[in-house]
Amino acid sequence: MAEFDLIARLTARAGARGDVALGIGDDAALLEVPAGEQLVACCDALNEGVHFLPGTDPADIGWKALAVNLSDLAAMGARPAWALLSLTLPRADADFVDAFMRGFSALADAAGTALVGGDTTSGPLSICVTALGCVPRGQALTRAGARPGDAVFVSGTLGDASAALEHLRPMGPRHPGEGRSDDDFPMSLRDRLHRPTPRIALGQALRGVANAVIDVSDGLLADLGHIARASGVGIELDAEALPASAALRTLLDPAERLRCQATGGDDYELVFTVPSERWETLRAIFPPEFRGALPITPSPPLAGEWAGVRGAFPAVTRIGRVVAGEGVRVLDADGVPVDFDRAGWEHFMDKVP
Amino acid sequence: MAEFDLIARLTARAGARGDVALGIGDDAALLEVPAGEQLVACCDALNEGVHFLPGTDPADIGWKALAVNLSDLAAMGARPAWALLSLTLPRADADFVDAFMRGFSALADAAGTALVGGDTTSGPLSICVTALGCVPRGQALTRAGARPGDAVFVSGTLGDASAALEHLRPMGPRHPGEGRSDDDFPMSLRDRLHRPTPRIALGQALRGVANAVIDVSDGLLADLGHIARASGVGIELDAEALPASAALRTLLDPAERLRCQATGGDDYELVFTVPSERWETLRAIFPPEFRGALPITPSPPLAGEWAGVRGAFPAVTRIGRVVAGEGVRVLDADGVPVDFDRAGWEHFMDKVP
Repeated sequence: MAEFDLIARLTARAGARGDVALGIGDDAALLEVPAGEQLVACCDALNEGVHFLPGTDPADIGWKALAVNLSDLAAMGARPAWALLSLTLPRADADFVDAFMRGFSALADAAGTALVGGDTTSGPLSICVTALGCVPRGQALTRAGARPGDAVFVSGTLGDASAALEHLRPMGPRHPGEGRSDDDFPMSLRDRLHRPTPRIALGQALRGVANAVIDVSDGLLADLGHIARASGVGIELDAEALPASAALRTLLDPAERLRCQATGGDDYELVFTVPSERWETLRAIFPPEFRGALPITPSPPLAGEWAGVRGAFPAVTRIGRVVAGEGVRVLDADGVPVDFDRAGWEHFMDKVP
Repeated sequence: MAEFDLIARLTARAGARGDVALGIGDDAALLEVPAGEQLVACCDALNEGVHFLPGTDPADIGWKALAVNLSDLAAMGARPAWALLSLTLPRADADFVDAFMRGFSALADAAGTALVGGDTTSGPLSICVTALGCVPRGQALTRAGARPGDAVFVSGTLGDASAALEHLRPMGPRHPGEGRSDDDFPMSLRDRLHRPTPRIALGQALRGVANAVIDVSDGLLADLGHIARASGVGIELDAEALPASAALRTLLDPAERLRCQATGGDDYELVFTVPSERWETLRAIFPPEFRGALPITPSPPLAGEWAGVRGAFPAVTRIGRVVAGEGVRVLDADGVPVDFDRAGWEHFMDKVP
């Protein structure tokens, strides 16, 4: 199959937006950034054996390749608009492309994102997605605004994806005695690894509320380390406050669970800091029936989990505080720092298989 | 070396622009598209063994990875502004990254393009660049505007890069009897393969002048085929009018030369169609001392070569005409169509090694 047939298959699922003056099919796309808004741009590649296991459903790869980029836009408080896709395949495989695009466009359509360009070429399986979005000028959220006294919140639950990854690796689960067969393995955890939900609506809602935001892609400690460095602050987390899914609580003992929550990558939740004067504003973001459950009282350490996911908004849990100093520490129930082997995923040391 | 050290090496050569509100170092870049302008976006990957030979100088890879994308912006008449780079490396190799960035930033600086984001990860060597630029609203050049009666022009010379590629392949030159040692091989042709010059200034100058534009990446016939299809026209080229460098004329016999000129990829020249009422405008684009040499008289077939390259502008040669109908044909001096095995590069059939 020639490249042009593949492009036709991609184009068929490209989606449409009124601000695409020219989409796939020319040398470049022509796009309209609204007056008063800034362009937000990011680009992340997914490689077989590094970011996903060989044999992963192509539809899941398609979803995730877009999701990790939309998550970056969400962490900026941006509204996603357009995507470019560079698809490298070992051979021109129509079935793969169709399945890939089924997953890619399922998320693209849900997020209102149009595929406007890219290329297909031959080589070891690799997917590079560029996501483009818009944000009102001056309102973007960054990693640099955290201040001592801010509370630290995280959306959703932590550790599910890394627990699933450890289970699904070819060499089996890390702890053979605790292993389960694939059939037994909770689908909810598998979905968290393969079909992460970028927190797009939450990111936009945090504009004017959060002082600093990042998405949890490499691991909570590693990613909060970026906020700490960019903001010139330290961060303390309460181990017991870190939100865990019911499936993860069933699957892992507390120590293993904490390791996955604190250092596992691929969660794609938003972690953000909010000053005390805006905790009520944060509470107001959430639907009335859940507001009471949002733990925003100032006395740390405060465990708690906002259990419901309502509409576009995930649960949000307060997990710690910004302090003067530097670094990120996880404190146990006695206030003693917990040691971890590492803070998160290192792209040149960790490989999936 | 951790990913973050690599990113520091990339950031050191990122360049600066006043319209970058936030560059490398957060979840995404924040960019300012000027009022009244459209965003122009494209994305092309380069894979080892497909787009460049194993052992190619990393500086050349860096240059070319950006060049092929800036060439796409040039073909839209856009002004390049920003780039994102996704770099996949087998290992965290600081020497490779430094050399790569030397080539990348040499072109980025010359083109006024700032590197604003991307990622580094491990895997088989692959480079994906996204180029972003701007164009005054409604003035972008596309493939779709060619009309019967337009003349077809091409910048620079054709076939140099493919002649160099055939010479440098590991299995040696295609025609052993004609082979030369690497030392003898003309550096000018090698540079045309490894360091293509995107025709950025020319592309912008063609706004309001050309009816249709494309860059020659896959091969002249293949790329003009896109214009023919998008515009619903046919195109006739005059074999003797196709511009060739002196080095190519010395290296190849006329039939081989014509094959490289018509079907070889990687030229990154602009080929464009101009209606007769704008031939004088086209002439006016060029510096006065060269205007007389620009062949714009209407009687086809007209050979001719505009030999000088002045400032940012390459030579421009009239090579044929747009006709009613469909398809692209090359006519010899007697007006007889020339047969070629193929029109150009097919990404899933051709591999470099």
